[in-house]
Amino acid sequence: MTVARQLAERILAPTFQDLPAEAVHWAKIGILDTVGVTIAGASEPCTAITAATPGIADTDGPALLFGLARRTSVLDAVLINGVASHALDYDDVNNQIGGHPSVPLVPAMFALADMVDTTGEDAIAAYVSGFEAETQLGLGVHYHHYAKGWHPTATLGIFGTVAVGARLLNLNVDQTTQALALAVSLASGVKANFGTMTKPLHIGHSLRNGVMAVLMARDGFTANEAAFEHRQGFFEVFNGADSYDASKIFDGWGTPWNVTDPGPSLKAYPCCGSTHGAIDCALALRHAHSPDLADIVKIDIRTDPKRLPHTDNPDPISGLGAKFSIQYVVARAFIDGAVRLGDFENAAYDDRGARDLMTKVSASVHPDMDDPTMDTYAAEVTITMNDGRKLSHRSGDVVLRGPGRPMDEAAMFAKFADCTQRQLPAETLRKLYNMLLQLETLRRLSAVTDCLAAV
Amino acid sequence: MTVARQLAERILAPTFQDLPAEAVHWAKIGILDTVGVTIAGASEPCTAITAATPGIADTDGPALLFGLARRTSVLDAVLINGVASHALDYDDVNNQIGGHPSVPLVPAMFALADMVDTTGEDAIAAYVSGFEAETQLGLGVHYHHYAKGWHPTATLGIFGTVAVGARLLNLNVDQTTQALALAVSLASGVKANFGTMTKPLHIGHSLRNGVMAVLMARDGFTANEAAFEHRQGFFEVFNGADSYDASKIFDGWGTPWNVTDPGPSLKAYPCCGSTHGAIDCALALRHAHSPDLADIVKIDIRTDPKRLPHTDNPDPISGLGAKFSIQYVVARAFIDGAVRLGDFENAAYDDRGARDLMTKVSASVHPDMDDPTMDTYAAEVTITMNDGRKLSHRSGDVVLRGPGRPMDEAAMFAKFADCTQRQLPAETLRKLYNMLLQLETLRRLSAVTDCLAAV
Repeated sequence: MTVARQLAERILAPTFQDLPAEAVHWAKIGILDTVGVTIAGASEPCTAITAATPGIADTDGPALLFGLARRTSVLDAVLINGVASHALDYDDVNNQIGGHPSVPLVPAMFALADMVDTTGEDAIAAYVSGFEAETQLGLGVHYHHYAKGWHPTATLGIFGTVAVGARLLNLNVDQTTQALALAVSLASGVKANFGTMTKPLHIGHSLRNGVMAVLMARDGFTANEAAFEHRQGFFEVFNGADSYDASKIFDGWGTPWNVTDPGPSLKAYPCCGSTHGAIDCALALRHAHSPDLADIVKIDIRTDPKRLPHTDNPDPISGLGAKFSIQYVVARAFIDGAVRLGDFENAAYDDRGARDLMTKVSASVHPDMDDPTMDTYAAEVTITMNDGRKLSHRSGDVVLRGPGRPMDEAAMFAKFADCTQRQLPAETLRKLYNMLLQLETLRRLSAVTDCLAAV
Repeated sequence: MTVARQLAERILAPTFQDLPAEAVHWAKIGILDTVGVTIAGASEPCTAITAATPGIADTDGPALLFGLARRTSVLDAVLINGVASHALDYDDVNNQIGGHPSVPLVPAMFALADMVDTTGEDAIAAYVSGFEAETQLGLGVHYHHYAKGWHPTATLGIFGTVAVGARLLNLNVDQTTQALALAVSLASGVKANFGTMTKPLHIGHSLRNGVMAVLMARDGFTANEAAFEHRQGFFEVFNGADSYDASKIFDGWGTPWNVTDPGPSLKAYPCCGSTHGAIDCALALRHAHSPDLADIVKIDIRTDPKRLPHTDNPDPISGLGAKFSIQYVVARAFIDGAVRLGDFENAAYDDRGARDLMTKVSASVHPDMDDPTMDTYAAEVTITMNDGRKLSHRSGDVVLRGPGRPMDEAAMFAKFADCTQRQLPAETLRKLYNMLLQLETLRRLSAVTDCLAAV
């Protein structure tokens, strides 16, 4: 049996009733987080340029553009919402796919549910199945696939998109097989374009391609169902000989579902991941000691040396630069007790209070972490008070929030609110949040986009 | 200077006045042939499914759908016309790109000229420049790129599309550089999907992506201009280390223009290229001797053994199968003095006359051509008459029609007419043909699509 057909059978198999509560829980967390960051990304320039391109979203259709309060075709909606979802790079991550697991799934789910009736249960099962498909493919082709330069959130994510689409549009195994094989020819995106608007475009483009493959396969468009294992197919062309193991794709499928282990890992702060350990420390010190900032003499940050070359920046001169300034984000954490999206807009990095505190911050290598064979995101922050006291906190090695270290309810709501409060009235924001937390109870998933559209 | 910027400067440089007459001539031949095969392909199922996909061509716009007599967005028009242009695999070929040079260019040219004023001269210069870009890139990455499994008509053709778009939309060097770099992330298409509808989709998809890159770069969308030479960019990711030579891309650029040497090579018959030598022989024998078919006892075809495994088929059972039956197409050539599109439709392969003659046809290896180190498309056909006479003809090694062996005027018109006569009244057909032969005289290229739209 071809790889595409084996994938299709597995993708279509699980029902909501088959899923353990844990899988449902983590699916809802991934979906909720993605909705938030998508709304936040809707006002980014990369999203605006995409939406304004002649021929894109020129016409009305069923599918809502998140944060833009208008509807267009499913294909253009997933393109634009996909760009928005990854515009801030604030969406969840997963090491099996080697990238971002939810953005290939969530925009497709909502856009298709705007076209065909979909229950919350259907949507959750589609998310779990798509998450499994893209991450299991990752186990078969990584990390060669990643190291070579492909952007897996697109080049593997497209198969997660196909999985979601095939389920929501009720494709049969033959059609799903064809859609997967067709998607092999549409997969694209290289890491050379990281750091530019083209990075989030990879996601929107891949979503559009995956949904298009599903729509076309449903109508009888043909592809070669051996397109994965063919000598001029996905494995050999994208990876190359001896750099993949297709059997790993099917080992342990659904046992447990990858959405529960390792699951989606949420970013707690909208800045470079290499600064997150230090932010954790700053927030912990602030919470434990409530230091008066005026009494702080100095703030010493110590980390793994691999975290510093791109974040040791005491004088950021742009919002993007501020996301990569460990001095700035730590100062923000001490001042505000949070690091929020607004801290990287409107020259917030030049605020007098932040600049004053930043003069006291230094970053250096932690002697315990100075080992090239290990790789930790931990940090230790020590503040010296003007009475001579030294207060320290050391973070854990894992700074993202997922099944091993859940984000607490308050932090999750705070992130969602930070992402959406400029677009949504407080009442809608809370209503939407609660709806997403109880997604399995929705008779129609489109209640979510209806709520957003009513703003 | 980055590869993308060097490409951009060269792509934008030539004006129509700089071009030698030969380049203008062959550009017009390539464009004319492509218009014909695109109209022929407009009624193929792959084109119809693409055009009927929800979200594709749902709305009116400036750009004509060839053969469908309606207009939509430029992006959707190039997608659909691109699928049509390659649907029959009857479009021109070129060994430098390792595929089909005109289909990445011509649909983009006409769709954009429906949106912005474009003269015939502008269009020809854009075609020559795009032809050069995609074929020179081929010199840098082939044949590893081809042998590995990429479909170069898409993965290199996309840069030809960008060239045409950048010229017709008057992008500057910076914008063109960004569009080329963006297109690196959109290039896709693997040969595993050859033999399915996904093959022509590669072309339409690549055209849409190339035009989208141009439109987005014009509006300020960003990419990494080092996306070709970056260690995780086009050369390293698509080809891999030590399998390309970027310097060859710029060697001999425009001296002469590749459109004149080797130029576009036209297919004379709408069937497998491996049968074309034998068809040449049959037509030459018919022309020289006008044999009465009833007096023919047997027809012996002898070819390079590499031409036979996929064409030695004395009993085709489908239209597609008939395209790969050397017995059928040779019989058709003797009977009709031509091989036409209609010969592969409506079970024409089962016609009594053809079947009667096919019983006399055999195919075998030519002793002169039985050499694994050489590769020829030549054939020798010998007919034995019932009076004992044996009449033979041996074709040349090259069976395609290009600068080294032009297609004569009558054959060119016959192919164009065969491709378009079901869509166009005779008068329009002739008018369109003449317009294309004098393309440089058009004040507005859109006169061509206006002519087609008026049908």
